[in-house]
Amino acid sequence: MSAELWPDVQPDAARRLMLAAVESFASRGYHATTTRDIAGAAGMSPAALYVHFPSKAALLFAISESGHRQTLTLVESVADRDESPLDRMREIVEDFVAWHARRHTVARVVQYELQALPEKEYAVVADLRRRIEHRVRDVIAEGVEQGVFTVSDVRTATRAVLSLGVDVARWYTERVNTTPKALGRDYAELVLRMLGATA
Amino acid sequence: MSAELWPDVQPDAARRLMLAAVESFASRGYHATTTRDIAGAAGMSPAALYVHFPSKAALLFAISESGHRQTLTLVESVADRDESPLDRMREIVEDFVAWHARRHTVARVVQYELQALPEKEYAVVADLRRRIEHRVRDVIAEGVEQGVFTVSDVRTATRAVLSLGVDVARWYTERVNTTPKALGRDYAELVLRMLGATA
Repeated sequence: MSAELWPDVQPDAARRLMLAAVESFASRGYHATTTRDIAGAAGMSPAALYVHFPSKAALLFAISESGHRQTLTLVESVADRDESPLDRMREIVEDFVAWHARRHTVARVVQYELQALPEKEYAVVADLRRRIEHRVRDVIAEGVEQGVFTVSDVRTATRAVLSLGVDVARWYTERVNTTPKALGRDYAELVLRMLGATA
Repeated sequence: MSAELWPDVQPDAARRLMLAAVESFASRGYHATTTRDIAGAAGMSPAALYVHFPSKAALLFAISESGHRQTLTLVESVADRDESPLDRMREIVEDFVAWHARRHTVARVVQYELQALPEKEYAVVADLRRRIEHRVRDVIAEGVEQGVFTVSDVRTATRAVLSLGVDVARWYTERVNTTPKALGRDYAELVLRMLGATA
């Protein structure tokens, strides 16, 4: 599970701590969680936690930065393709929505605990967020230029598209009667209409 | 301020406590806030808090129930009008989005602290949420029947419409370069397109 969420993080103990932190932050909130709670949930001692993360804030940052890098990578890998803006928007929304559904517990921490990050770490994450927004905005703007999209304000449209995806983390659970993939496809259709797409 | 947010709550001290609770919950999260913090922020003693609210959970419930009743009233007052489904959807989205922008700090507590409610209180709020969803769904379904909307799945479309509105509470601040009213109007246009509206 933790290896699937954070394939780049080593060793396994660090990933287990991140998973325990995600679960604790998601259920009780960041501020009410202690490093002792996290270590306990990972079956480790508080001292063992500090071997991998100097503080609770460092754990939050690791989770938040990784989540933002994953979504940025997902957006960039599609945005750079040699395809029409319409096809790229469809794939971006499919992937972005499916990510927030599949990883909803991680995504909740990633999206809703930003203000708990220390200033320097917040700046790193804010930069990743801007890059995600700009890449999506550029695809929409390209579509408008080429006449395949019609929107009155590219910035507002970008915000609405990302907002639909982010909010999936709030309401999606495994009990929802839709798979992450199917939800991504449905939302991509709704987004293309919202952008006034003409095939 | 608190009288504007909760015109039905009396006396003023109870409203001041609700406002202090909203601010504490929004900045530190529900679990990390104590009744002592809330009383202090309202300039009152912990004993004075208990005169109005038996517990921290009672304060959260008062805030959550009131927020849900306000948004339900807003949806119902439009849904019942003798107007076309298209006009009603436009007005519902305008009002729902503007409410979440204007009241973004209250709305964050209303929308993101549900799981902290005790079981009985959660059931009351869950019922209000279902009623909001059903009213919106009925307007969309009516529009589909009358051929003014085209959606492949009414339930998914309803979720997306409400999701766009709710997520405004997450990102909106006074620093955003759009008024709640203007944002409501822009989002209503995007939603009508999403529903495949034909004027």
